[in-house]
Amino acid sequence: MLSTSPSLDALIAEFSRLPGIGRKTAQRLALFVLKRPRQEIEHMAAALLLVKDNVRTCSVCCNITEDDPCSICTSSKRTHEVICVVEESNDVFAIERSNEFRGLYHVLGGSLSPLEGIGPEDLHIRELLDRVSGDVEEIILAMNPNVEGEATTLYLTRLLKPFGVRLTRIARGIPMGSDLEYTDAATISRAFEGRIAL
Amino acid sequence: MLSTSPSLDALIAEFSRLPGIGRKTAQRLALFVLKRPRQEIEHMAAALLLVKDNVRTCSVCCNITEDDPCSICTSSKRTHEVICVVEESNDVFAIERSNEFRGLYHVLGGSLSPLEGIGPEDLHIRELLDRVSGDVEEIILAMNPNVEGEATTLYLTRLLKPFGVRLTRIARGIPMGSDLEYTDAATISRAFEGRIAL
Repeated sequence: MLSTSPSLDALIAEFSRLPGIGRKTAQRLALFVLKRPRQEIEHMAAALLLVKDNVRTCSVCCNITEDDPCSICTSSKRTHEVICVVEESNDVFAIERSNEFRGLYHVLGGSLSPLEGIGPEDLHIRELLDRVSGDVEEIILAMNPNVEGEATTLYLTRLLKPFGVRLTRIARGIPMGSDLEYTDAATISRAFEGRIAL
Repeated sequence: MLSTSPSLDALIAEFSRLPGIGRKTAQRLALFVLKRPRQEIEHMAAALLLVKDNVRTCSVCCNITEDDPCSICTSSKRTHEVICVVEESNDVFAIERSNEFRGLYHVLGGSLSPLEGIGPEDLHIRELLDRVSGDVEEIILAMNPNVEGEATTLYLTRLLKPFGVRLTRIARGIPMGSDLEYTDAATISRAFEGRIAL
């Protein structure tokens, strides 16, 4: 860098490591840090380390948590008979935001990707199978609609079918608020396949 | 937030304070932090605090620095007779990247903005006037091409004219690599005004 401060250069380098943060954004963030009161930045630094110290994986659903089992797994307000299987923790956030689903989750920790060397043993599939007991009535697969997600859905379907539990997958179709005109052919094709009777 | 970890929520809140970082990006960054080794995050936290401890303002040019005067002000490889006046420290970075200017800088710390209550006394204008001695041959004004920048240029022009130093302003015109067709009318009009003889 061409700044006149090695400390600032170091912070810019640290910010640049973050996903989606390029050189210029990192520079802007570092200059922002410079301008803020020290106390505020101390809070930020402490928050970074607290996350590393406090956050772990729920032994039941494999979602991130501070208490084990997590607050979703232990909640009496949720339907314990339905498990929604997702790839990552941020998928849980996204689904919770919709306020649509009131069951439990299971976080796989990724999706099957032979190209990246991620096989079934790298995902929390064993833990999922352990949960499929008499209590569970439905398992909803909510993988991302891409090649890896589809492969994972297919793999889990084969694995879970023998348990005789109800197995579903969230719908693919035209997203709300969009235009048919600008929707890609694959999505339209899925929307037609998944049409429902009125 | 709907996460199952207060520490993670706190970190998401901290990231959200950064400029240009929305809720979703903050969430993505926080989950990234979760996945990295503790040592890496310790480095990041330390870099944040180091910047607050080490970085200060150069007493000559008002740019950020760790040594006072800064490495640009003390460099023997640079032309000390030319001063380029900019609004902020990141403007210095931008100009240094172009490798075009080899003189010194003066960072005002902002631009005149009556609407935001920023007057001449809030900028490092007094420090600039102190530097306009017999040695300085040229002052280049490099304010941003917006209302505040233009006002600052005008104000400084009036203030510096009496010193009899050569006063210039960087050119406004069509940016390199762009299309005339897509250039706004104000820029085209400035490009015509600033045309040079071939």
